[in-house]
Order: sequence, then C-alpha cells, then structure tokens
Amino acid sequence: MSYLSKRIKGPAPMNLDVGALKQQYPDLINLSIGDTDFTTDGRIIDAAFEDAKKGHTHYGPPQGDPELITAVQQAWREDYGLDIPREEILISASSCLGMGLLMLTLIDPGDEVLVLSPFFSVYRSQVELAGGVCVEVETLEEDGWAVREEALEKAVTPRAKAIILDNPSNPTGAVYSRASLTAIARVAERHDLLVLADEIYTKYLFRGSFIPFCSLPGMRERTVTLNSFSKNFMMTGWRVGVIIAPEEIRRAVQDVNAGMIYSAPSVSQRAALKALQLRDEMEKLYISTYQERVYYAAECIKSIPFMRLSPVQGTFYIFPDITLSGLDDRAFCRELISQAHVLALPGADFGKAGEGHIRIACTVPKAQLGEAFRRIAQMRF
Amino acid sequence: MSYLSKRIKGPAPMNLDVGALKQQYPDLINLSIGDTDFTTDGRIIDAAFEDAKKGHTHYGPPQGDPELITAVQQAWREDYGLDIPREEILISASSCLGMGLLMLTLIDPGDEVLVLSPFFSVYRSQVELAGGVCVEVETLEEDGWAVREEALEKAVTPRAKAIILDNPSNPTGAVYSRASLTAIARVAERHDLLVLADEIYTKYLFRGSFIPFCSLPGMRERTVTLNSFSKNFMMTGWRVGVIIAPEEIRRAVQDVNAGMIYSAPSVSQRAALKALQLRDEMEKLYISTYQERVYYAAECIKSIPFMRLSPVQGTFYIFPDITLSGLDDRAFCRELISQAHVLALPGADFGKAGEGHIRIACTVPKAQLGEAFRRIAQMRF
Repeated sequence: MSYLSKRIKGPAPMNLDVGALKQQYPDLINLSIGDTDFTTDGRIIDAAFEDAKKGHTHYGPPQGDPELITAVQQAWREDYGLDIPREEILISASSCLGMGLLMLTLIDPGDEVLVLSPFFSVYRSQVELAGGVCVEVETLEEDGWAVREEALEKAVTPRAKAIILDNPSNPTGAVYSRASLTAIARVAERHDLLVLADEIYTKYLFRGSFIPFCSLPGMRERTVTLNSFSKNFMMTGWRVGVIIAPEEIRRAVQDVNAGMIYSAPSVSQRAALKALQLRDEMEKLYISTYQERVYYAAECIKSIPFMRLSPVQGTFYIFPDITLSGLDDRAFCRELISQAHVLALPGADFGKAGEGHIRIACTVPKAQLGEAFRRIAQMRF
Repeated sequence: MSYLSKRIKGPAPMNLDVGALKQQYPDLINLSIGDTDFTTDGRIIDAAFEDAKKGHTHYGPPQGDPELITAVQQAWREDYGLDIPREEILISASSCLGMGLLMLTLIDPGDEVLVLSPFFSVYRSQVELAGGVCVEVETLEEDGWAVREEALEKAVTPRAKAIILDNPSNPTGAVYSRASLTAIARVAERHDLLVLADEIYTKYLFRGSFIPFCSLPGMRERTVTLNSFSKNFMMTGWRVGVIIAPEEIRRAVQDVNAGMIYSAPSVSQRAALKALQLRDEMEKLYISTYQERVYYAAECIKSIPFMRLSPVQGTFYIFPDITLSGLDDRAFCRELISQAHVLALPGADFGKAGEGHIRIACTVPKAQLGEAFRRIAQMRF
C-alpha cells in the first residue's frame, strides 16, 4: 500500500545518476547542466554577508525585502522604461517556485495551460500538480522555433486558461521576435488567456535587445512575468526570483507563497539587491563567455556530418538536430555516453516537438567543449 | 472576472499591518512575532560566507548538500541514538515548505488531516491547498493541552490520512509527554494513519528531554519528521529545514520539491552545516534567554487579575486565558492595542480550541516585556 496521493506519478523525466556515470567514465564531459559554471561575483557575496552580519538573518516581509522591491522597480524603469507599481511585485524563492505556486493559484483541475514545445519540462509537472492539463503547441525549427498564430489558435479550447512563454527558450535558445510575441498577444486577448512569461535568460541575447512580454500594448493586465537572479546573475544556488503580476494575482500568489515558504531567503535577497546594482557588468564579465562558447560550439558542429544547427540566438543552450545519425534522440544520447563519454539531454525530454534533437549546455570551459566535439566527430553509427 | 483558482479562498487569517499600527502607536510593543530576536551566530554566517566564496553558490543535489545530510545523521545518532539512513533524509527550503509540499505529495481531494487544536493555522491553508479537509481535534488547557486518546479516536473517519503533531506546540507551548505521544501512536496504528511530526522547537524545553515521535516503537515507518534550523538555531531568514521520512515518501516529496524549488538554498545549507556543529552551544547562548523571559512573563501574569496561565513547558510562546476580562479573544486583542499599545494574536487564530486565549511571543528583550505587562495590568474593561 502506498501513502502517496494520486497526483504523484513517478519520478521526473530528467533523472540522471551523474555520479554513477562519472564512476563508469572518469573522463565524462557533462553538457547536461543548466547552471552557470561561474561562482557568484565576490562583490555580491561580500554585500550579502555584510548585511547578514547587520541582522538580515530574520524572516522578511512576505512580499519581499522592501529595498529589493525598490531596486526591481528602478531596474525595470531604466532597462525597459516601464513603471511597475510595488503592488505588482513579489519576491519569490526562485522563479521556478514562483511558477509552481502560480499554477496552484490560477489553475483548477481540468484547466488547460498551453506550452510552446519544445519546452522546459518542469512546466508539465507544475501544471499537473495543480490538476491542470499541459497542452503542447508544436513549434518548428524551420520557423526558428517561432510560434505560428494559427497553431496556437487551434490549440485553444474553452478550458484554456494560460499560455506559458519561455523567452529566451530553454531548450532551443530561440528568442521570440516582436512579431511572434504580438501573435501570442492576439491569441491571449481573443480568448482572455493569461500569459505566464518566464523571462530568466534575458541577458543571454546575441543580437538585439530583450522585449518583455508585458511591455506589449494591452498585455500588462494579463501577463505574469517571472524574472530570476539565477542565470542572469550567476546565482542559481541562492534561490531568489521576482514575480510581476496584476495586483489581484500578486496578492493571491503572495498568500500561497506565505503559507508555503513565508518569505524568500533574506540573505539571498540582500545578494540580489547588490546584483541589480552590478547588472550592467554581468554581460561583459560573464555572459560574453557563454556567447563565445555557443558560437564556438556552432562552429564545431559545422564539420560534424550528422548534426545540424539553426542560427543561435540566445541562452547558453544549443539544440542541434541529430536525425542524420539514423538514431532517435534517446538512442543518440546513449551512444553519446558510451562512444564519446559526453552527457547531453535528449530533445524528447522537452516535449514531442523536441524529438530528433539534443540539448547541449555550454556550461563548461571552451577547452572541454572542444574536446567533447572532437569525440563526437569520431562517433560511428 | 477573477483569474484565481477555486482553491484560493482569500487572505490568510494573521494578516496584520504592523507598519500602520506602528505609525498610529509609536510606542507599540509587538508580541506577535514568531521569530527569534537574535541575529544568527557570527560563526555560522562566517562559515557560510567562506563556503560561498569557495563555490557553494550553485544548485545543489535535489536531496540536499551531501555533507549536511551526513551531519544530520550524526546529530540524530548523538542526540537520540537513532540511525537514520541517507535514503530517508531530504533537505527542504524550510520545514514550512516541507509540510506544504508533503500535503501535495500525500493528500488527495477529500482526504482528512487531523490537527490538535489550538494549532499553527498555516496547516489548514496547506491541507486545503491540496484539496484536503482539516479536522480539528480539541485539546484542553485543563489537561495541559495533552491529547485525549478517545477524542482523537472519535475524530477518525475512513477518509482520515494523517495526524499533524506540533511538538512543542505553537501556540500553547505545550510539550507532549511520552504517554500523550503513545496515545497518538496507538490511534495512528489502529487506523493506518501517517503522523506528520513538526518538531522545530525541540531545543525550547524547560524540563526533561525531547522525544522525537519517530523514536516510538513501530512509528518510524509511518512518521514524517520535520526539523528546522529556524528556531533552534536563530536562522529563520535562511529557509532551511530537514524532512525525515520512509524512503518511498522521501523520494516522492523530493520529486515534488525538485519540480518546485529544485534544491534548498546552497549558502543556507552551508550555514546549517556549521550550525549543527555548534548545536550544543545554542541553549546556553540563546535559548536560555527565552526560557528566562517566558518565566518572567509567567511571573508578571500572576498579578494580572484577568489573565491565567498554566505552567509553562516550552517554546517562546505563552498562551494565557483572558476570559476573566469579560471579552472574547479578538475583542481583547483590539483593546490590547488601543489601551496598552501591545500587539498579540487572538487564540481563535489558532482554531476553535484557542478561543478565550491570546498568544504572546516572548521575542522582545525582558525590559520591553516588562513594560508590556505594566501596561496590560492597567487595562480596564
């Protein structure tokens, strides 16, 4: 007899025992990690710990550290020219937890949430934990993974409640154009849908500047934006993010949040405060390295006959097509481990539209990345 | 039209605008705060900071920092003589989040969870968020808030799934005796119920030593224990706790946790590691102060004709009866603010069995506590 509730459906898909693999292949190169390989900037750590010593080791207000909220307002004003009232801001213990608690706040059993596939598969777990149904809307590599308005429109049923937009996208690295975002806005407006805009790789853009979904005309009132310090500021371990939402939703998700974790970690919030002050330096100091690696990986792939890669746009992931190998993506990843001692994730982990691809995270130094591609080039099928 | 899900039922009960009250009464004494007034020990902050600089700023394994898990095992062995396998330990981002995610892991809509009332009211929100029903089992002050086996037995229906045990208890400060715990164990065994043992004030005992519920014969297999660093180690703001559960439950709640927050904050986990090394010093350095204050408050109450207090046992709360004032507890708390400029929480916030009482948190220095009771003594009804 199991004590588990019916909503528990077995382990998450991406359950790799990396430790065991490393024992089997001591020269394993792990390209599966969605974490920056930089330690958080020393100035951020110093500031957080000075503040801890000054007494920032207590519960904070459930809405978030007041100074951090002010700094978020200032950053949005300076970066995007948008005035976000305090009443629309909540500091969360990561945008991941933020999205999970949003599902509990917004989704009734049977409600449908549309995701643009390939997609970050945790969304499915979160939607299903709230009793909702995750509806995959396929996007195509030939469109640069842009969303086709008619495909999105077709997927909307009367039970549809929200669209999740992950921009730039994990796993594809695609950055949505204004035209693409406007198409999503039209569908959302037509069917009175919320848009949950997961915007956590916003500094990882290789061309142009980032467009927050909520900046589109008429979208503020139906958009919940999730920002995070994890990727943009090399702060994955601190667990702190920002939710920007219409006041009614902010209040409700804050109550759910307060009943679950009470407030985001105080020391981490002080770290985030310092991080925002340094945000202009992040690109030069850290993110430029990822851009360099991504372009380098793209260059390496050019000479590998069984891999094809669309032009890279953003994030630290690349998502090459491997169908010319004659294998499906799961079989390919198994061969990748056994022949090349390289670990990457099968595209199918990110939904049906991800099949035939693999996700490579450029979160190791360039030399290791080069070695990985040298080994991959020697694979035989 | 609201976008909120049906499980959202309005704000949490304890929603005080302390800021506004302080503006109205600049000499307000706030006895409502369930947070230690000590900053975290400097050695803990230093250790966490050094580890952050060494690179502990990344995601950790979803189960928790391996060294922290080992330290938890060691502490349980040394403190209680119990061997807890690693497979039964999960580090959570606070025991509060741990309990909330446990509800989602264990409770199906309609399942009943029994709480011993008066009780920490967040349990109700968490049970209801999972679609469960929170069933209050009254305990009585005349029994020292011990649970009567027949009352607990009577509350069990075929939909009952778990009993929440908060030991020592917030708000009453009661510590459950072995006889009381054994009575709960008998009922749990008879009806195949889980016991969710929220054990977070375990160092705040004024007599005797703490008995973990899972140490009772036959209880390990049906107990989920929640420990926390918040109160025992003056670390509320760091958000780190420990779940100890049978392996199947640990695995399932870890998957839910991984899909919500991925892992507990890394820096906080390093702080917790240091805290466990210092745990023998906590009582002398910090907790003795709370014991002193609680006894002092009990002494003050003796001369207040409209307050009665049972012998204090543990935590930093006291829960006096105020019915001799002729007011109910909500009205009393309003008078407490307007006449004495003292903020405390009405017992009804903690369930029906809390009515006629107020919760006073001894989380301010003794001088302020004394001043509060001097003002209370002058109240007229």
